Amino acid sequence: MFESVFQSFEDQADASKGAARVAALRTEMRRLGLDGFIVPRADRHQNEYVPSSEERLAWLSGFTGSAGLAIVLRDRAAIFVDGRYALAVRDQVDLAIFEPLGLAAPGPAKWLEANLRKGARFGYDPWLHTPDQVERLKKALQSVGGELIAVEPNPIDSLWTDRPAQSLGKISLHPHKHAGEAAAQKFSRVAPLLSGEDALVVSDPHSVAWLFNIRGTDVSHTPLPLAYALILKTGKARLYVDARKLDEALRAKLGLLADLREPQHLERDLDDLGRKGKRVMFDAATAPEKLAGIVRDAGGVCAVATDPIALMKARKNAAELAGARAAHIRDGAAFARFLHWFAQNALKGKLTEIDAAKALETFRRETGKLKDVSFPSIAAAGPNAAVPHYRVTVRTNARIAKGIFLIDSGAQYADGTTDVTRTLAVGRPSAQMRDRFTRVLKGHIAIARAVFPKGTSGAQIDALARLPLWRAGLDFDHGTGHGVGSYLSVHEGPQRISKLGSTPLEPGMILSDEPGYYYAGHWGIRIENLVVVEPRAIVGAEREMYGFETLTLAPIDLSLIDAKLLDAEEIAWLNAYHARVRKVLSPLVEPAVRRWLAAATKRISL
Amino acid sequence: MFESVFQSFEDQADASKGAARVAALRTEMRRLGLDGFIVPRADRHQNEYVPSSEERLAWLSGFTGSAGLAIVLRDRAAIFVDGRYALAVRDQVDLAIFEPLGLAAPGPAKWLEANLRKGARFGYDPWLHTPDQVERLKKALQSVGGELIAVEPNPIDSLWTDRPAQSLGKISLHPHKHAGEAAAQKFSRVAPLLSGEDALVVSDPHSVAWLFNIRGTDVSHTPLPLAYALILKTGKARLYVDARKLDEALRAKLGLLADLREPQHLERDLDDLGRKGKRVMFDAATAPEKLAGIVRDAGGVCAVATDPIALMKARKNAAELAGARAAHIRDGAAFARFLHWFAQNALKGKLTEIDAAKALETFRRETGKLKDVSFPSIAAAGPNAAVPHYRVTVRTNARIAKGIFLIDSGAQYADGTTDVTRTLAVGRPSAQMRDRFTRVLKGHIAIARAVFPKGTSGAQIDALARLPLWRAGLDFDHGTGHGVGSYLSVHEGPQRISKLGSTPLEPGMILSDEPGYYYAGHWGIRIENLVVVEPRAIVGAEREMYGFETLTLAPIDLSLIDAKLLDAEEIAWLNAYHARVRKVLSPLVEPAVRRWLAAATKRISL
Repeated sequence: MFESVFQSFEDQADASKGAARVAALRTEMRRLGLDGFIVPRADRHQNEYVPSSEERLAWLSGFTGSAGLAIVLRDRAAIFVDGRYALAVRDQVDLAIFEPLGLAAPGPAKWLEANLRKGARFGYDPWLHTPDQVERLKKALQSVGGELIAVEPNPIDSLWTDRPAQSLGKISLHPHKHAGEAAAQKFSRVAPLLSGEDALVVSDPHSVAWLFNIRGTDVSHTPLPLAYALILKTGKARLYVDARKLDEALRAKLGLLADLREPQHLERDLDDLGRKGKRVMFDAATAPEKLAGIVRDAGGVCAVATDPIALMKARKNAAELAGARAAHIRDGAAFARFLHWFAQNALKGKLTEIDAAKALETFRRETGKLKDVSFPSIAAAGPNAAVPHYRVTVRTNARIAKGIFLIDSGAQYADGTTDVTRTLAVGRPSAQMRDRFTRVLKGHIAIARAVFPKGTSGAQIDALARLPLWRAGLDFDHGTGHGVGSYLSVHEGPQRISKLGSTPLEPGMILSDEPGYYYAGHWGIRIENLVVVEPRAIVGAEREMYGFETLTLAPIDLSLIDAKLLDAEEIAWLNAYHARVRKVLSPLVEPAVRRWLAAATKRISL
Repeated sequence: MFESVFQSFEDQADASKGAARVAALRTEMRRLGLDGFIVPRADRHQNEYVPSSEERLAWLSGFTGSAGLAIVLRDRAAIFVDGRYALAVRDQVDLAIFEPLGLAAPGPAKWLEANLRKGARFGYDPWLHTPDQVERLKKALQSVGGELIAVEPNPIDSLWTDRPAQSLGKISLHPHKHAGEAAAQKFSRVAPLLSGEDALVVSDPHSVAWLFNIRGTDVSHTPLPLAYALILKTGKARLYVDARKLDEALRAKLGLLADLREPQHLERDLDDLGRKGKRVMFDAATAPEKLAGIVRDAGGVCAVATDPIALMKARKNAAELAGARAAHIRDGAAFARFLHWFAQNALKGKLTEIDAAKALETFRRETGKLKDVSFPSIAAAGPNAAVPHYRVTVRTNARIAKGIFLIDSGAQYADGTTDVTRTLAVGRPSAQMRDRFTRVLKGHIAIARAVFPKGTSGAQIDALARLPLWRAGLDFDHGTGHGVGSYLSVHEGPQRISKLGSTPLEPGMILSDEPGYYYAGHWGIRIENLVVVEPRAIVGAEREMYGFETLTLAPIDLSLIDAKLLDAEEIAWLNAYHARVRKVLSPLVEPAVRRWLAAATKRISL
């Protein structure tokens, strides 16, 4: 009945090939006179989702997490992952070959210092590391009197016989009704932000997409066109993209806006700028060392800074916000149909996590507008819900039993990107579940209701989401909210609500509000809506004040709420939110869903 | 009737001499071949309060603020101050001589780049700048192709004919019952924190005082012994102090603990360490470039880092906390006597700000234990209360009229340092005053009641103090709380509650909790208690949790509270706090004060 088009639940990890592949890499290392080689989980743009042709780390090790790196020395190899993947990595890689270690501690640099021989020659692919990352590797090598060596082409590519072809995903125009601002206008706003530099290399494909009002199909779940761009201080733009990704009409349109050049041309152009002694700005987070090195080697100045486009892109304009609202209404109706279906079926005890993920994707596809899911759904029953970044596969797929079911999912529509998490009781929840759920809800509401002056960062308000848990001696180990793009990445910077979120929150920024609580080995709770920063008029205000408009429309499971723990303002917020959900979604769903929605959003009182 | 022993209300500024003194300095600059010279408001330890012999900036310019610097070029001079002093500086200096500018923007470096001639020779006193400050100056000079030149002795010292003699303030032992830990034990805890360095130069006199369990009398309001120390990685200690500051008994006692050496000896010893190629750690915040340069020039390695003693000192031990509690009870009784006196007299309309400051100091002196005030009282009536850092002088001294009176003051006792602010209504406060006061109180209570997990920084909880103001579109432009020492500085790092407070709060740290609201030109509100971080046992807690114990005992003016704005938990906190104030202080005050205290601390209800 339900199927999945955009998600695979297969186990992609294959630990069994690690031994042979590492052996082959070592042979190649010997041929190149290298004592070691580093294999990051990165493509040439430091993307979160990478094209399959760039999955070198998964090919080598079997590890499929979204962050990590392997280091292969002649006699040993290690794989470095963060806390999210500390357990998963042990399942996915051959532990006889790879020692799993922490990315933060010990970290690759310290490990290299301890394990490299004096005078070692250590290789890296300069396309897959940023200048800062290379700087850190260089320091580690210096401390053992060794040498860091850029290796091109990547030695893995010659060993990887069935490597998928490079993606040539079609690019399309992001229509003006959704983008809300012409590309030429964007170029002219970027140019003054170059602050003394002669050009900016746009290496983040999210920035390229936003800047040129284009979307692509090179990676899963995010409509990225893998491409680079160059903005000159005059406001002139160049787009470096494989011509096969563009149809004739689009080529003509883009050609009016910018110089269109083949990707290889970028290296030549940067060499040229370098020779002329120009100053070129690179994005610290995504620029490959390869490109920065070209400018430096040719005699130019290479300024590694924060891509100024990221902040411009984060502040959505009126058209983008109208799109986001429309996308959330559409998505809310699909999600309500899913919740109704779940309520009808979950207690029968036959559903699995994958069934739920497929059903939800199907309801979204039935809107006729779904471009992709915005990330693989986290559909988690019982103990799986206690793993914040759980991803269901055929191997882990659990039956949905009495207790708690958590579903964290999102959609890509042409007018907006969604991301919503609901925690659902199957049967009667325990008093402890209701206590924890209500505390998480109080934290969620505290963010939703927050009012703060211009200049306030996400770090300053993060604790509001935690205080109700703190009062009970509890907490959660992830940020409260991440930025979200406009039919772009579901994880967008620089805005975030976390103790690390130093960027001031500004009107138009979309963020998630998603506190949680995780009872390891038992169950987990998370309540996530997307919110957008909006100006807030307050009578008598002396400061420019902001607050949040909630975008996501989905009932919050009333059976998990202990109303005694809520205060009058929290109850008022919940009732107003549910009234809005009911009013907006009811006309969009079939009568049975409408009836269920009325009950699911009924007023509660103290 | 009342008098002030520890505070002067005279105007120390004298703008009239600026022209002649700057002219004399320029003559001296010409003799030295300098195009400019920088005069910071700093001594050789970057102290907040400096001995009168170090007040070079005040001597030259007339400016008496606690932060700032002047730069004198051949044809122009500028004085750089922060926002607190932007208005005051215009009163204090001769504007025909000094252009007043912002320390942050444009800042001295940018100004130098714009105003120095190419190839300029620019002088500084290497004892009065930290290595980082010198680094920044050096960059500014490089950008104009100029040269930064260390000048010794400071050219001002030969012009300043009536310069006070160097302070030889007597040093005394801080008794074990208050210190709670032997100096030798402290040395052995510091040594492992040198992390690979061979020695630590202790340049912050607060650290020296804490480490050796000594207190001094070299500066006002903080019992600092101006001295340097050296801790070797073996745990051996050397104290560099003028022998005339020590009596024989103390010399004998300290001699058992450490090598006692004359101050000049430090330069020789650092040169010696440098020649041996040793690695020496310097405190980034307080070390003079002079000393770091000696190590570097002799061939050693100079590691500029954060003085590890600051964090050790911030975590008070049981004896220090017992002392703090005793000091706060004593201070609370004196403050209650002041509040009673104020309540009896303020409405008569005869009191001035200075009268109030003198009265409060007198009540504190009558405890028989007052060593000093911990800072000059901020006694501010009406519009003066809207200036957070107001300091009353004979020239500004206002009569206390109907409206609001704010008093921010503190005491130094051998067992502890206090700092308390109360805002008092004189007559019937307006509805607006009560609204604002109650919002500030809600913020104060939110911090006092906060519960947070180990690892939480002051930055994470700062917003709790602001949220009730934010809801009305209001805010205050200072941090919520600063660290406080143990019979040491009333402003102590690294702990603080502010968006810049990145240090995790740990048990034993004393901080102020002092949100405020300032209605420029009219009145101001601040409510300040000192609090100490304590472990908090919570049934069912999964994390190690902390909270605050309130140290300060003083009634909060009930006539300024609008109880309708408080919730049940806030009212419960206030009633419990007032019950404790009443119970602890009543036995310590005379019957009339006791009767007043009973009324001032009566229960309120919703």
